Amino acid sequence: MTFEILTLDTLTNEVQVQVAALYKQLNADNKQRSLQEILHSKNNVLVLLCKVDSAVVGIALLSTYTVISGFRGMVDDVVVDRSQRGKGIGKKLMNKLIEESAKIGLDEILLFTGHHRKPAIALYTSLGFELRKSGLYSLKI
Amino acid sequence: MTFEILTLDTLTNEVQVQVAALYKQLNADNKQRSLQEILHSKNNVLVLLCKVDSAVVGIALLSTYTVISGFRGMVDDVVVDRSQRGKGIGKKLMNKLIEESAKIGLDEILLFTGHHRKPAIALYTSLGFELRKSGLYSLKI
Repeated sequence: MTFEILTLDTLTNEVQVQVAALYKQLNADNKQRSLQEILHSKNNVLVLLCKVDSAVVGIALLSTYTVISGFRGMVDDVVVDRSQRGKGIGKKLMNKLIEESAKIGLDEILLFTGHHRKPAIALYTSLGFELRKSGLYSLKI
Repeated sequence: MTFEILTLDTLTNEVQVQVAALYKQLNADNKQRSLQEILHSKNNVLVLLCKVDSAVVGIALLSTYTVISGFRGMVDDVVVDRSQRGKGIGKKLMNKLIEESAKIGLDEILLFTGHHRKPAIALYTSLGFELRKSGLYSLKI
């Protein structure tokens, strides 16, 4: 099992196909944005992959931005392949993101997850994440 | 009353001082990141100001980033000066951010706000924002 931060240089068509298939396990219907677009230099997003025998079995993304309240990271699109669950891959992906966050000097990491996603919530709280007394609101444009 | 998108070219020390004082009305204790840092070209954050007679009386920030799930905007640091509340400035700031979001092609705008902030929640839902069935989790680094 290896972990790597994807870059435009290491992005291949095979990786894109594998990540797209993996993401469908999280959300089968969403229109997906391409890794090419995500890895564009103007977009401050770190794409972390977990591979087993060169197959992508886990992904996690960290977007970073500075606002008055702080230098923040937002975690999105965390998926572990169904066949690979229970091996601690989600935890290892998150620990790697936390490690990277400390390296670049983030003040805090944020994420949101559905109230019904009990295993995900258990993972995040085990890592020290705390539920904020806030609601998340969204508007489709 | 005028609205303007702040840039490094229009940022002055006076604006920084006014914004810092205004932000304290939202959170008096937070260490603040500077507008200089926020307006850096690598940071994709739009800073919207509302001015009355050249005094900054309202601010709202929109950070944008692309992940697999979409091209998203996160709204932060929305503050209207105490003396200017009830004049619809918050709504105008948000409408302007929504207009800019449409212009740049965002898929959706997200924001989070404390469950106790009833006037803010009323404003956001009046604009079409919907409460997601998700919890917001954070980890200080």
